[in-house]
Amino acid sequence: MEEDDPSRHIWFRDFIDPNFVQLYAVRDVIYSGKTKFQRVDIIHTNSFGKCLVLDGKIQSSEKDEFIYHEALVHPAMLTHPHPQTVFIAGGGEGATLREVLAHRSVEKVVMVDIDQEAVDICQRFLPSLHQNSFKDNRGQVLHLDAREYLSGSRDRFDIIIIDLTDPVEGGPSCQLYTQQFYRFARESLAPGGILSVQAGSCNLGESTIFVAINSTLRSVFPQVFPYQTHVPSFGGLWGFVLASQQLNPLSQSVEEVDEQISARVLGDLKFYDGLTHQGMFSLPRYLRQEISQGKSIITDEKLLSLC
Amino acid sequence: MEEDDPSRHIWFRDFIDPNFVQLYAVRDVIYSGKTKFQRVDIIHTNSFGKCLVLDGKIQSSEKDEFIYHEALVHPAMLTHPHPQTVFIAGGGEGATLREVLAHRSVEKVVMVDIDQEAVDICQRFLPSLHQNSFKDNRGQVLHLDAREYLSGSRDRFDIIIIDLTDPVEGGPSCQLYTQQFYRFARESLAPGGILSVQAGSCNLGESTIFVAINSTLRSVFPQVFPYQTHVPSFGGLWGFVLASQQLNPLSQSVEEVDEQISARVLGDLKFYDGLTHQGMFSLPRYLRQEISQGKSIITDEKLLSLC
Amino acid sequence: MEEDDPSRHIWFRDFIDPNFVQLYAVRDVIYSGKTKFQRVDIIHTNSFGKCLVLDGKIQSSEKDEFIYHEALVHPAMLTHPHPQTVFIAGGGEGATLREVLAHRSVEKVVMVDIDQEAVDICQRFLPSLHQNSFKDNRGQVLHLDAREYLSGSRDRFDIIIIDLTDPVEGGPSCQLYTQQFYRFARESLAPGGILSVQAGSCNLGESTIFVAINSTLRSVFPQVFPYQTHVPSFGGLWGFVLASQQLNPLSQSVEEVDEQISARVLGDLKFYDGLTHQGMFSLPRYLRQEISQGKSIITDEKLLSLC
Amino acid sequence: MEEDDPSRHIWFRDFIDPNFVQLYAVRDVIYSGKTKFQRVDIIHTNSFGKCLVLDGKIQSSEKDEFIYHEALVHPAMLTHPHPQTVFIAGGGEGATLREVLAHRSVEKVVMVDIDQEAVDICQRFLPSLHQNSFKDNRGQVLHLDAREYLSGSRDRFDIIIIDLTDPVEGGPSCQLYTQQFYRFARESLAPGGILSVQAGSCNLGESTIFVAINSTLRSVFPQVFPYQTHVPSFGGLWGFVLASQQLNPLSQSVEEVDEQISARVLGDLKFYDGLTHQGMFSLPRYLRQEISQGKSIITDEKLLSLC
Repeated sequence: MEEDDPSRHIWFRDFIDPNFVQLYAVRDVIYSGKTKFQRVDIIHTNSFGKCLVLDGKIQSSEKDEFIYHEALVHPAMLTHPHPQTVFIAGGGEGATLREVLAHRSVEKVVMVDIDQEAVDICQRFLPSLHQNSFKDNRGQVLHLDAREYLSGSRDRFDIIIIDLTDPVEGGPSCQLYTQQFYRFARESLAPGGILSVQAGSCNLGESTIFVAINSTLRSVFPQVFPYQTHVPSFGGLWGFVLASQQLNPLSQSVEEVDEQISARVLGDLKFYDGLTHQGMFSLPRYLRQEISQGKSIITDEKLLSLC
Repeated sequence: MEEDDPSRHIWFRDFIDPNFVQLYAVRDVIYSGKTKFQRVDIIHTNSFGKCLVLDGKIQSSEKDEFIYHEALVHPAMLTHPHPQTVFIAGGGEGATLREVLAHRSVEKVVMVDIDQEAVDICQRFLPSLHQNSFKDNRGQVLHLDAREYLSGSRDRFDIIIIDLTDPVEGGPSCQLYTQQFYRFARESLAPGGILSVQAGSCNLGESTIFVAINSTLRSVFPQVFPYQTHVPSFGGLWGFVLASQQLNPLSQSVEEVDEQISARVLGDLKFYDGLTHQGMFSLPRYLRQEISQGKSIITDEKLLSLC
Repeated sequence: MEEDDPSRHIWFRDFIDPNFVQLYAVRDVIYSGKTKFQRVDIIHTNSFGKCLVLDGKIQSSEKDEFIYHEALVHPAMLTHPHPQTVFIAGGGEGATLREVLAHRSVEKVVMVDIDQEAVDICQRFLPSLHQNSFKDNRGQVLHLDAREYLSGSRDRFDIIIIDLTDPVEGGPSCQLYTQQFYRFARESLAPGGILSVQAGSCNLGESTIFVAINSTLRSVFPQVFPYQTHVPSFGGLWGFVLASQQLNPLSQSVEEVDEQISARVLGDLKFYDGLTHQGMFSLPRYLRQEISQGKSIITDEKLLSLC
Repeated sequence: MEEDDPSRHIWFRDFIDPNFVQLYAVRDVIYSGKTKFQRVDIIHTNSFGKCLVLDGKIQSSEKDEFIYHEALVHPAMLTHPHPQTVFIAGGGEGATLREVLAHRSVEKVVMVDIDQEAVDICQRFLPSLHQNSFKDNRGQVLHLDAREYLSGSRDRFDIIIIDLTDPVEGGPSCQLYTQQFYRFARESLAPGGILSVQAGSCNLGESTIFVAINSTLRSVFPQVFPYQTHVPSFGGLWGFVLASQQLNPLSQSVEEVDEQISARVLGDLKFYDGLTHQGMFSLPRYLRQEISQGKSIITDEKLLSLC
């Protein structure tokens, strides 16, 4: 634990908030550049392996991305009885696609990520994340605005997964966190379809965005289920939301989820199973209260204050 | 978010591990000193309010201590049908005592913290933590070695709570994480008694101590139940373990826990309730696997490598 | 050099510029508060001892303040043949006063520091800096605006020393770096009088203020002499300027300066002597060029951009 | 000055000492790797441009390397009446070579740097430093141990320049800071020859190595002249020493040095001239006292404690 160990002289600094900062020792900066949409860095940290960093925020680390991507994909996929068509908004590193394709029932996946350059960089430098998922014939990757795609297409999907960067000023994703966008998503769901949304931090005192996404989704969908898990490289607890017309992720028992996984998912999951599912949906009291009291609705006219 | 804001020019640096550091902006250092046993700082951070720091690690922050202390105390207390006598090892800031005393059934609490100076400093500078719990007639505070007390006393307790600092080299608590100590604790439990242990980080890849405490307790108690929650000022997920001869915290439903709280606990809890209880005991798959595969047993002869 | 040494878990962060930061390990924060004029911290660092910090910038450290204060005071005092009356603007910690009073010739010193609270805090917590200089009968300390004092008074001084904080937005000293202020200073000098000004960083690429102070003084005084020295706790090289009607600090040889010190100064100087004097006034080529090319003049109407 | 500006999320951390740290915002890490001898990083900082970092310490930055290299080379070269042959120990980035070759009188330069890989990396990634000096026919670059070369060769040089990394444990340069090495250097000087040594920090309180190099050189050479200048990217004042049998750098006036530069050096110097020369050799009183009191002599048997 020598301070002057040269393997710890370069650090990545992540501002969780202005008064709370995380530092990661960096072994190497593999790539640094700006695309048309955002700044992209691929850094190799000592603690978390290779990380994708967009506009200064870690999006995925080799060490813990399995937690985030399993948490984002499988609850929705396994609540649905037989998902065949899946839409992914964002997801540039290909790991969400990877988890979706592990489901035997899946026949077609459309992934729409606006930033082709970023996707190409991930494909080149982060093979452990995509694991060649981009080569699966069931998948189709388009470089368009996901909102325009959904609003303009007549395709219907069993599952829609929103895997976007957090909204930041000038970032590419502000318009994809609004009531209007969620309505386009609703119209693009096939009957019985489910929407899964990555929904920002739900650390104590930092859950404003998470709460607002919940209340916005409640204004569009009758069934809305928040859940969370801990993603170390994101600086704490991370929130997700399932939304649908009627399907309920809590209707299955721990054992039923485990059985579904065995029957429907190829390969082993490291993070997700029935008990993990139960844990994720069992939010602590204070957070349930914040969510239930949340009233602010994000609209195109009233974006999140970060935008 | 100005970098040079003078309210953010002093920072507390917490090494989660040598490659991962957290920084907290400090408004004021209220107290700094060394007792016979450890270094004590009371710092006022911008994000977490006043914090007790022992040997460089945050033990309690005003903002999130309710999570830690409710998680440490109430699962054991509510699994027991009628706890009247409670022993606390450590707990110098008085917040564990505060939560214990919220139970109507409690008649006697013995708190043994070796470091009188540290307890006095907490009493003076952290009133929001102890909330005058030291003045309750049911409580008795002794400044002895908790292990010597338990091994030498014939008292029996319904609940024993181990609220010690993490084991660090030269720190006061290394001998209180061993099989021998847990045996003394077992002999000091009344029939039907329950032991609750704060058990260190269970962040992904940092759960060595947590896993070892679990396997050590399994070598002493027939019933051992790990659980976790997120404590931001501790740098992530924090582990706890319940151990007993037969009582099982999972035998109660979510609703039954809620009913027990209403009937038995004075005042409102902010963090803990039936659903929180269910969430805490539903560990993610990878962590359950690590715990079940854990074999190393901490003994007086083979202390944790940190000691 | 252990990273997790608890004696190095609190750090003072000094932004030399947005891309270059210095961190000082803090043993203790002795005082923190806000006066009517500025934020005041007294911190005890491991490397530099106790430090006075105003609005987030170190003003004096026990370790190296002798360099700054000897450099600010003695070149002017020893260039003057027999200084009897001295005016100090600022200088709240009392160390400039201390160095002035070491001159046998001095009969009267008027120190005007607007911030009485800050002066009181220094007097209480930084005895090693003032060394009881406030108790010397030759000195008089007033808590007024130095500019108002000089513009309104008919007193004339042999030496005027400007020992103010750097100009920062909303800080108390912006009006004391302008042509108009220097004119008031000029009118307050007795015949043969000398003005000594602390003039900010002269680190490579950071000398904008230093250069502007030089050109502003050249618009008011016929004789202007920049000099510099290294003050570690200020983050590098620090600039000063002497200005007068005719006296020239370079007219004395190394040996003559040494003789003057022996004859006129009580006690030992640690930093300043004839050779040090020669070194300070021998600026590197690039800095002399920047100064000679400097044209911008600070006026009441056109303050420094930092103000 | 936004903290979360993504162009300031990667930082290089330089431990000036365990209690004092400098941080540089990093735009890009251009190269990272380990040679047989040391860790090599080429980083592009926001403040200092591209920097060569060896074993975690900045060796040269685009912004201020002219100060270091002009200070290392020209005082020795211009004290000598007509230097034709020059030996450089170290100097891998080629900038010392560049300054030497600017002297019209130079006919032959032998540069011996043990680390071929590091030299190749510099040649490839730091063209602004070497400025094609490696292609000059007068120069010869060998990848050998400089001590073995000097002790084994019968060549004699007018000037020997020691441009090595600071001694650190396990680093390549510990044996090149000893009395025995300086004796080999002395024997390799032609009559009237001069040795110039980069000699580490001379910041207040950090001059142990600088002082020891001075006393060690005094045990080998009759004429020893310490000097210093400020190199921001090295964290403060940097020390150098000239040693010779009889030549004295202080025998020339400011004007004579300026005349010599005009007559003998191609191109413009940015840092060095007669007045700069005078400033560098005019050390502050406390440092002259430390040097004159220094007694410890570095020998092969008693290396610096850092080694």
